[in-house]
Amino acid sequence: MTMSNGAERLKRLQRKVASAGLDCLLLGARDAFDANTFYYSGDATPPKALLMTADEAFCFSHPKQECPGFENVEMRHFKKQLTEFAKKHRVKKLGVDMHSDMAFAAFYIEKAKHVSFVKQLLSLREIKDADEQNALRFAQDVTKQCVAEALDEGIYGRTENEVAGVLEYKARSRGFSLSAFEPIVLANERAAVPHGKPTQYKIKRGDAVIIDVGVRAMGYCGDYSTTVYDGGNNELRHAISAVREAKAAATKKARIGALGSDLRDSALHILYEHGFKDVSFSAAGLSLGHQIGLDVHEGATRLEKTRLRKGMAFTIEPGVYVNGKYGVRFEDVVLL
Amino acid sequence: MTMSNGAERLKRLQRKVASAGLDCLLLGARDAFDANTFYYSGDATPPKALLMTADEAFCFSHPKQECPGFENVEMRHFKKQLTEFAKKHRVKKLGVDMHSDMAFAAFYIEKAKHVSFVKQLLSLREIKDADEQNALRFAQDVTKQCVAEALDEGIYGRTENEVAGVLEYKARSRGFSLSAFEPIVLANERAAVPHGKPTQYKIKRGDAVIIDVGVRAMGYCGDYSTTVYDGGNNELRHAISAVREAKAAATKKARIGALGSDLRDSALHILYEHGFKDVSFSAAGLSLGHQIGLDVHEGATRLEKTRLRKGMAFTIEPGVYVNGKYGVRFEDVVLL
Repeated sequence: MTMSNGAERLKRLQRKVASAGLDCLLLGARDAFDANTFYYSGDATPPKALLMTADEAFCFSHPKQECPGFENVEMRHFKKQLTEFAKKHRVKKLGVDMHSDMAFAAFYIEKAKHVSFVKQLLSLREIKDADEQNALRFAQDVTKQCVAEALDEGIYGRTENEVAGVLEYKARSRGFSLSAFEPIVLANERAAVPHGKPTQYKIKRGDAVIIDVGVRAMGYCGDYSTTVYDGGNNELRHAISAVREAKAAATKKARIGALGSDLRDSALHILYEHGFKDVSFSAAGLSLGHQIGLDVHEGATRLEKTRLRKGMAFTIEPGVYVNGKYGVRFEDVVLL
Repeated sequence: MTMSNGAERLKRLQRKVASAGLDCLLLGARDAFDANTFYYSGDATPPKALLMTADEAFCFSHPKQECPGFENVEMRHFKKQLTEFAKKHRVKKLGVDMHSDMAFAAFYIEKAKHVSFVKQLLSLREIKDADEQNALRFAQDVTKQCVAEALDEGIYGRTENEVAGVLEYKARSRGFSLSAFEPIVLANERAAVPHGKPTQYKIKRGDAVIIDVGVRAMGYCGDYSTTVYDGGNNELRHAISAVREAKAAATKKARIGALGSDLRDSALHILYEHGFKDVSFSAAGLSLGHQIGLDVHEGATRLEKTRLRKGMAFTIEPGVYVNGKYGVRFEDVVLL
């Protein structure tokens, strides 16, 4: 993140803080990576709490760090520091990022009214600037390189877990980790469950395998899925070409001004035409995709309800899921 | 977790809920693995909220899951469900696991007084039963096997990240992931910073390298560190033998009834004798170790202040950290 980006972001946020009538907003990272903390401070090393009023911004951290744009304070007796802060700044209405693992600190400011600020924070991150788009593109490119190399080395004779391990190694060898989310490598009937965990099953030639992984690079997530199959089952081969076609149709609709549901409908239309209505991603309770950025799943509303705007980044990942038999998914990230 | 363990744990917890005068306790996993949720429900698949009164226990999940010992409820309009629950059960004093990423849900029960229950929850997990001890021993064994195999294959000529990737692959090939915490592989001056991140530096023969990793198996964490060095720097060789000796001395003191600080002092005594006073783990602001279980760092108090009891599990990890030059650490898990 460049300094100028940081200053702009903070100003935009503080305008929202003011217009929501908040005396203060609390963000932070106690233990885990927190996207909003990173977005505004350029660093999410825990423990860190960001407190913003309409015209001031404080970064409490231990050890004390320099966050440009913030007044930096060493976190010592945080409970006491917070209560004193609240008193000094007369905090009566406190906005809280309820999804941050620092949210509990709001309890320390007992007398204030606590208000969730989750949706506003997500909305402020929906439009990606040029640096973010570059980071997302890079993360996705690295992710695809890892998958391509692992496939070149061959997946047959390895367990699902081993293939996940090879992918982790490929990411590390490029200086990143495969940590945008838990890697998915699932064969046959396990692939029919969209978010299963790799097992010790040894993959054989003729198995249908879904790989779905993402590296995290400079904070930003990749998310790429493919289905590997070289067997002779005609239904499965048909499903694969139908899902590919559905993905292409949805991607073609991915234009500024379109609604997420338009994309979904065009993908479903293809799957229905091919006779996969009852086993479509939608029938399995899944969405066509999701916005992506510092979190692998983000966005102020479901993609289906989102009016696509310039600077948005999201996945398109139609699939077919046949219980007890197989799953097919193809996925890529779209940047508008 | 066996059913009988689960029932006992829940009963013990509910007694604490009653003695704290709580009308209800809220735990849960919104997005990330949550140790307490796993400990009481045997499953931490998010999203899941556990609500316990002194004599009832409810598990809200989506999709609805069967949790033995709990009344299982499908999570639908969770905010509405929670407010109705609070009204029905007249929740005026609500205990909250403030460290869970479900803590924000406490805000939905606006009129109740919110009380942190973090310390009590940690204290209830301090004594490990036989199943937990077996899982911890197993996780540590697998972790050591991974490190031994990676060292056999050789670390020279690989980047720090690549070695981390090899270790991830070794864990996967055994059916586990190296996810107890972010893997640490740090050479030379980077090893002087105890919790750095692997880089793209290519490790050469003669470098001093700290490896510190842990698999997660059946929920439980491994945590093992070693220092690899075959160079001829006498100070470094001396530091390595001093830290080994310090670890052995602390481990010998690790008996039921001892205080954590006794162990620390015996390790420090050795390091001081060898002239490493100003660069000891203690001088670097580090503890001798930490309790370990479903979280890699756990415990109701710092290890230094803990009176060791039968069933406790903790690490012993003395080290020497020389800024700008090298770090040495040896670590293993002790089960009492």
